[in-house]
Amino acid sequence: MKSFRKELWFNIPSRVGFVNITGDVEDALRESKIKEGFVLVNAMHITASVFINDDERGLHEDYKKWLEKLAPHEPLSLYNHNLTGEDNGDAHHKRQIMGREVVVAITEGRLDFGPWEQIFYGEFDGRRRKRVLVKIIGE
Amino acid sequence: MKSFRKELWFNIPSRVGFVNITGDVEDALRESKIKEGFVLVNAMHITASVFINDDERGLHEDYKKWLEKLAPHEPLSLYNHNLTGEDNGDAHHKRQIMGREVVVAITEGRLDFGPWEQIFYGEFDGRRRKRVLVKIIGE
Amino acid sequence: MKSFRKELWFNIPSRVGFVNITGDVEDALRESKIKEGFVLVNAMHITASVFINDDERGLHEDYKKWLEKLAPHEPLSLYNHNLTGEDNGDAHHKRQIMGREVVVAITEGRLDFGPWEQIFYGEFDGRRRKRVLVKIIGE
Repeated sequence: MKSFRKELWFNIPSRVGFVNITGDVEDALRESKIKEGFVLVNAMHITASVFINDDERGLHEDYKKWLEKLAPHEPLSLYNHNLTGEDNGDAHHKRQIMGREVVVAITEGRLDFGPWEQIFYGEFDGRRRKRVLVKIIGE
Repeated sequence: MKSFRKELWFNIPSRVGFVNITGDVEDALRESKIKEGFVLVNAMHITASVFINDDERGLHEDYKKWLEKLAPHEPLSLYNHNLTGEDNGDAHHKRQIMGREVVVAITEGRLDFGPWEQIFYGEFDGRRRKRVLVKIIGE
Repeated sequence: MKSFRKELWFNIPSRVGFVNITGDVEDALRESKIKEGFVLVNAMHITASVFINDDERGLHEDYKKWLEKLAPHEPLSLYNHNLTGEDNGDAHHKRQIMGREVVVAITEGRLDFGPWEQIFYGEFDGRRRKRVLVKIIGE
């Protein structure tokens, strides 16, 4: 069994944002030379997500609006967590809806995807450097 | 390390529906002859889910009602995504709640499950042929 | 490829509760002697979750309040599932929000975590003995 590890770094200029990282994961897969196995892609921060969905701008706007409705940023007093001096209580909730990680099958050296699957980094407390882990096992 | 790949196909006659696919995954596991490892089961479409829960009809009705409340199908104008000509903006949201994939441990050639765990395909934009990927790695 | 399996048992004295199980998973990892691979940690029950987030008491109170709003325990008649004689319809919904499982990378014999990642068992129908599965594959 072979394994491969790579970190992807982000500094999203807004509080909330989505970035298509499919190409970065494909690059990591090529570097790994692994042909059959699994790739795990996970946010290394607890106010961010990695998820798979459509690369469509309207949908991303919909997600932002929907997540804001399910877990609003304000009032900050809505969250006990913000009593610690943080203002990101909402981000810890949004991340639970969108998920921490995805596991993708690798088949014949490629991400084994359906026609529209794309991998996204979802930021809910941006404006600072944060990381995603890409870990591949297989052979 | 061995690996095994199989696709499951569905054509759910309604927009929303749930199908127990535990037996299909067990069949794939037997075909694979893998005794120890992980199986990944994921929707290959971004308006569908794979999840693990109870095979109880009342619960499935509850899920449908709850998801419709959290992300209603109508009015279609609720979703920017529908400006693309699609009418499935809601389905992209329902799928995020229910999840894209499950990873299940394989122990002594069997799905390593608790007493009530069953694997479901969750359809949120049906009435067409769609796929689930079963990928197994181990030995 | 090596594999390792361990069950963790819980008996949460309240209906809803969160327990930090990071140390238990680290213990399992040490026992396994696996240095590179993946660990899967999943609830073996369908009214419980395993998730990764912050070990902060205020946040956990926020999660409880939020989940209760998204899927209230009462009235019991809200859920068709409760017609079976159960009273845990809400727990099956809360678990879908928080997730069944996490997959964590193992690198150089350690959980490959960002600075604040901690693994939690999330109970939504407690006051009885329930289990979590830790399964590790790698070498």
